[in-house]
Amino acid sequence: MRVAYLGPAGTFAEEAALRHDSQARLIPFPSFSAVAAAVDTGMADEGVVAIENSIEGSVTDTLDLLIHETKVLIKKELVLPIRHHLLVKPGTQAHQVGVIFSHPQALAQCRHFLERCFPKAHLASALSTAAAVEQMMAYDTPAAAIGTERAAQLYGAEILARAIQDQASNVTRFVVLATTDHPPTGADKTSLCFSFDKDEPGLLYGVLQEFAQRGINLAKIESRPSRESLGHYIFLVDLAGHRQQPQIAEVLEKVRARTSLFKIFGSYPKYAGNK
Amino acid sequence: MRVAYLGPAGTFAEEAALRHDSQARLIPFPSFSAVAAAVDTGMADEGVVAIENSIEGSVTDTLDLLIHETKVLIKKELVLPIRHHLLVKPGTQAHQVGVIFSHPQALAQCRHFLERCFPKAHLASALSTAAAVEQMMAYDTPAAAIGTERAAQLYGAEILARAIQDQASNVTRFVVLATTDHPPTGADKTSLCFSFDKDEPGLLYGVLQEFAQRGINLAKIESRPSRESLGHYIFLVDLAGHRQQPQIAEVLEKVRARTSLFKIFGSYPKYAGNK
Repeated sequence: MRVAYLGPAGTFAEEAALRHDSQARLIPFPSFSAVAAAVDTGMADEGVVAIENSIEGSVTDTLDLLIHETKVLIKKELVLPIRHHLLVKPGTQAHQVGVIFSHPQALAQCRHFLERCFPKAHLASALSTAAAVEQMMAYDTPAAAIGTERAAQLYGAEILARAIQDQASNVTRFVVLATTDHPPTGADKTSLCFSFDKDEPGLLYGVLQEFAQRGINLAKIESRPSRESLGHYIFLVDLAGHRQQPQIAEVLEKVRARTSLFKIFGSYPKYAGNK
Repeated sequence: MRVAYLGPAGTFAEEAALRHDSQARLIPFPSFSAVAAAVDTGMADEGVVAIENSIEGSVTDTLDLLIHETKVLIKKELVLPIRHHLLVKPGTQAHQVGVIFSHPQALAQCRHFLERCFPKAHLASALSTAAAVEQMMAYDTPAAAIGTERAAQLYGAEILARAIQDQASNVTRFVVLATTDHPPTGADKTSLCFSFDKDEPGLLYGVLQEFAQRGINLAKIESRPSRESLGHYIFLVDLAGHRQQPQIAEVLEKVRARTSLFKIFGSYPKYAGNK
């Protein structure tokens, strides 16, 4: 199995891909869009992308990709605890650190730690946590990077401080993309999006009524801009159930009839915790 | 009037602040959080922050600030067309440009132009479009920056290409924050957020029913993570009407009774177009 992920090696996406399939051949790609294209075109069998973080919210690049760009489907979800570590070149002491590199989201998630322990350090943005570790190792004055345990191994860095993220319960949800979604398992979720070509009171309410009347729980609802004009949105919903269950199939047809754009991203097993 | 904004000078936020009050004394601050704190503490009378872009969606930093951090209110909204220009040092030719600096959102909004016209250029992230122009002017090899017309004037740059954004209808909605919101005008909006301490089917539906039954239009609905655990959300709603209108006041009390967290961000005149 060839699994595409947002590289380089040492990112959380790589960790998610390994947890998804430890035997897979992992292929790094430079963007979410490239991961989806790799699956679309057969360069990879599956792709792993982050879709939501418990602190920062949705990964809007992934949502926009599913809405606008790709026809690949979600076949699985998995949830990864996010533990940020402070990495340095072997031998570097805390008081020497003048610059701290990381991805802006990682810097944001460790803000309190950084303000408390490194109030004078300059914070430098990098394209990924792995790229940050690479930059730090090549930097000519003492520096640090926020990265993963695996990045420390890959780039020969030392872990100066462990689990420095502000919120202990920091997790990221990843999805596995493929050309088909997952057969029913009895405990499934279905992700979809829809929008309206009119702007009338109660249109969204009418759709939610279809779900509520049947006692179908929505795990999530959110909106993204339609990109046409301000105030026009595409709604994204995760519901409990599989699109092949008769009751779900029926409600999806009702919703399709009430909306203009309607796209199902796939049905897949609800994540049941780390084994 | 002292108006705080996300600086430095030459950003779209400065343009929005000037359009809001061309006579104001503008005070730049380094973050959204600092702008709100300036208003909270009396350092500024008002603050101007971006809240939503028609392509990229919500400015989540601003939403999280309104939900979790500040008690300032929204007293006005205004919508600014976003036109990105390609700026260079005077005399630089297109074929010489090796690096293009800008804020990641600006780079994303000009992606097709950049891929078409500068496929080999290195794209470098900056903290704001204004900072990008400053960096470009100080760079030792030929470079370009994506920035505003005003940044070109401020930093002595030349405009090599105009309106290079991929989508012509690119607008950003800004809000003016103050210690009080706006009295009713007859054409108002109210922004609020709420969440539930239980996870039961139909809770959100129950709230939306309160609005739908009264024919109250929702201009917007979206969700943000509660930061407690994955799958718990805070919902944000913009509705048509002012919180001092009896019908709106009544529905807001009904919603308050159905929710755990409930916070009104303010009532303010609906934006009526650029004069």
